Amino acid sequence: MNGAQALLHTLKASAVDICFANPGTSEMHLVQAIGETDGMRAVLCLYEGVVTGAADGYARMSGRPAATLLHLGSGFSNSMANLHNARRAGVPLVNIVGDHATYHLQYDAPLTSDLLGHVRLPSGWVGVASSADQLSTLGAEAVSQAYANGGQISTLIAPADCSWNPAGTPAAALPPATPAAPDADSLQQVASALGNGKRSALLLGGRALREQALEIAGRIAAASGAVLLCETFPARLQRGAGRVAVQRIPYLAEQAQAFLQGYEQLILVDSKAPVAFFAYPDKASWLAAEDCQLLSLAEHRHDVNAALEGLATLLGATSQPAQCQPPMIPPLKGGALNMDSLGRSIAALLPEQAIISDEGVTNSAGVYMATQGAAPHDWLTLTGGAIGQGLPVAFGAALACPQRKVIALQADGCAMYTNQALWSMVREQADVTVVLLNNSSYAVLNVELARVGGSAPNAKTLSMLDLSNPVIDWTSIARGMGMQAERATSAERFHELFDEAMKTPGPRLIEAIIEPVAT
Amino acid sequence: MNGAQALLHTLKASAVDICFANPGTSEMHLVQAIGETDGMRAVLCLYEGVVTGAADGYARMSGRPAATLLHLGSGFSNSMANLHNARRAGVPLVNIVGDHATYHLQYDAPLTSDLLGHVRLPSGWVGVASSADQLSTLGAEAVSQAYANGGQISTLIAPADCSWNPAGTPAAALPPATPAAPDADSLQQVASALGNGKRSALLLGGRALREQALEIAGRIAAASGAVLLCETFPARLQRGAGRVAVQRIPYLAEQAQAFLQGYEQLILVDSKAPVAFFAYPDKASWLAAEDCQLLSLAEHRHDVNAALEGLATLLGATSQPAQCQPPMIPPLKGGALNMDSLGRSIAALLPEQAIISDEGVTNSAGVYMATQGAAPHDWLTLTGGAIGQGLPVAFGAALACPQRKVIALQADGCAMYTNQALWSMVREQADVTVVLLNNSSYAVLNVELARVGGSAPNAKTLSMLDLSNPVIDWTSIARGMGMQAERATSAERFHELFDEAMKTPGPRLIEAIIEPVAT
Repeated sequence: MNGAQALLHTLKASAVDICFANPGTSEMHLVQAIGETDGMRAVLCLYEGVVTGAADGYARMSGRPAATLLHLGSGFSNSMANLHNARRAGVPLVNIVGDHATYHLQYDAPLTSDLLGHVRLPSGWVGVASSADQLSTLGAEAVSQAYANGGQISTLIAPADCSWNPAGTPAAALPPATPAAPDADSLQQVASALGNGKRSALLLGGRALREQALEIAGRIAAASGAVLLCETFPARLQRGAGRVAVQRIPYLAEQAQAFLQGYEQLILVDSKAPVAFFAYPDKASWLAAEDCQLLSLAEHRHDVNAALEGLATLLGATSQPAQCQPPMIPPLKGGALNMDSLGRSIAALLPEQAIISDEGVTNSAGVYMATQGAAPHDWLTLTGGAIGQGLPVAFGAALACPQRKVIALQADGCAMYTNQALWSMVREQADVTVVLLNNSSYAVLNVELARVGGSAPNAKTLSMLDLSNPVIDWTSIARGMGMQAERATSAERFHELFDEAMKTPGPRLIEAIIEPVAT
Repeated sequence: MNGAQALLHTLKASAVDICFANPGTSEMHLVQAIGETDGMRAVLCLYEGVVTGAADGYARMSGRPAATLLHLGSGFSNSMANLHNARRAGVPLVNIVGDHATYHLQYDAPLTSDLLGHVRLPSGWVGVASSADQLSTLGAEAVSQAYANGGQISTLIAPADCSWNPAGTPAAALPPATPAAPDADSLQQVASALGNGKRSALLLGGRALREQALEIAGRIAAASGAVLLCETFPARLQRGAGRVAVQRIPYLAEQAQAFLQGYEQLILVDSKAPVAFFAYPDKASWLAAEDCQLLSLAEHRHDVNAALEGLATLLGATSQPAQCQPPMIPPLKGGALNMDSLGRSIAALLPEQAIISDEGVTNSAGVYMATQGAAPHDWLTLTGGAIGQGLPVAFGAALACPQRKVIALQADGCAMYTNQALWSMVREQADVTVVLLNNSSYAVLNVELARVGGSAPNAKTLSMLDLSNPVIDWTSIARGMGMQAERATSAERFHELFDEAMKTPGPRLIEAIIEPVAT
């Protein structure tokens, strides 16, 4: 048994059973070991951003880390934008990064770079193997540590000679790191604050947006009068008919500030203080009202459900019924295909337990609003703002939940970043319907350009935000990667195509040519 | 005038007149300033790897830095693989990376990461602006420093408030950093070593592979009997009929070792000691013969032509005629389309002063051999081994040399990494013919898998190196990005399509379905 085989044995024993891979020469023994390890699914991706985005989507839906297989510093750097998003999502994830053989590094061969300097940036835990045996010891630790702090990125550097040298017994699995118990003082403080008569809201994020946590939060709201808010970019929000609804903080800073104006107390539950996504001249970065008190009930590292349940107990809200979202499907609209008509079609046709990966940017609000009372579903968003996450996350979510329909609500500009994900969806026959929202522009940047102020932009400036020269034909790109694809230019045609997609398993793309909503 | 406008003024005054851009909200004032700056060409790319790869290609052909415009840590990380290649190519390049406003960083907004930690990895010079005025002062320094050490990556971090705050007078341009004078002792040592009767070779790399340097090296070879070798992955090799030919060190370590076996002395001229690209079990990392003496004539930071001329003078080789490559076009081969027949067609049809961007991997050797005596041309390779460089480098080279035909000799697996480059080629009507070598596999990894040894790979292992499920249809992908594209499955059809491409300006793609060469 070599080091690579021992590592794979340990990963498997640690309940890691899928590996998203984009390997190179220094990972060949790891590739062979994956090939030989029964029950370890190997998923080839044609770009590293797809690898890590898929591992993120997989973890959001399964709660377990996937392994990734990456190639040296350059392969790792290609994966970093989606690792940034995964870090912000707080998911468990285990990167295995091949390195040159330990004795080869001194020669500064062309692909050599400061690998440790790269992996430290997004990782919560880093291990560097220096022997074949250490590879599996550190592998066990990597998995355990991926569960620490509520979910974080573990990265194990695997020098090629540690993979190919003989190893002894594989390391045994370690128990996953467990969440911290809720802080009793924080619970007490929050409980008494909720009784002081001030206008209060629970700002829910992270795991506090799962069905069970929401149900407890709903009881707390009913008992205390506190409003339930949701962070702007949740990793996974369980919503729809029958679930406890939350009000999501708007993206635009001035809207968010107005939205938060009325609250004198914000109770943070696995969320952070609301701040502007970007700074703007003469606009606020801090979004809560000036006199608003912020209290923390639980951080991401805590057992969030236990914290909520503890608070409910202190408030006597253990059997209080939570208010639930009634079923509600807005009527269809025909004619122009825009984010309004598109949202209504999706709401009407959404199957039970669908998963929506939302990188729709300017065109997702319509769908979000329309689906408030649709069949229960999971809504996954762009947690870290590094675009190119939507397709990979949808792909990973589909592999985690093969019985559920996944919808990638995908803006065109962002889709280009990791378009290679389409190929892997076809290869794995993932049940993903990509709704490709084609408006031929970086529409959000046109909004942002207007907001940052300054003089009126000239044609050259606007050209830098324009995707219409040449127009991108997404059906052609998708077919080029083996995916069934159709185009819709009217609400009726979109409805027809989306209806068919919801009834038929397997990957497909609907290119929705989007018009602005008439005002 | 704001800081962004002052910076653009300074860049323009410093002879930087093109900016490859993938901006976000924090760069909106820079986008506006680019729009307002006459003579600053703005080139939108739909992924950051295209941005930096294009800047690399531009610099290789023009000798001048392009500016890039990148968005925060995540945008920068997407650009890093091709910055790694650019670093290995030793080209001048100026990154402008937008950051959050200085006062906004404390809030840890979603896109916040350790930007300085990112940019330090591939950069030779880093500047962080802390005021609007400093933005242009550091901009001048960034350009000057890009010329230092023979060409390096300068990265300027531009916080958003430094861009939008008012600035005074723009900073004046600084003189480009100049190359170091040759080291007289090294010249003397090399001159005497070349007279000691040992079998010697000049190992040429970097700028020593340009026409003028090669001519001097050719005279040195004629006078001393030394052989002229070429590093395996040159940034820019000027070759073809009438030029001084060099023997390129093979990629595979065991072949390279055999190739170098006969040399007792290697004189490094803007090159590094030859080492294996990767380590392999029981194979050497150091490739020169055991008793081989290595001497350095000049490093990349030196004035390489002056060093060669100085050596020629010491050797009395000032007017010695160099041996030149005679014109030689191998006869065409019909029938199967493989790297042999494809290479012969390209050699026969190559126009004068064409530029070949070679990321053909296993399929480029045939073209390289066939074009040895073709019309004079420039050959650009994957300097750092981070794949996904070929298309962007071809694009940047075409913008640097609008009068010259560019051919991207592009393997399919690598092409997927930065396929977004096709869109920018169409947008800018770059005169690039993409020869997309489709063999539906990571062929090089199949070679490497066999070389690393171990047991025979099973089907699951092999599937991780296979691109045929689903087959990628590159004509469809290219057309999806607005590019004219045709497919060739025979040598005759390829010849016809390539002939037409050489006669017609503008971007197009020929998908060559490649068969292995019959043995």
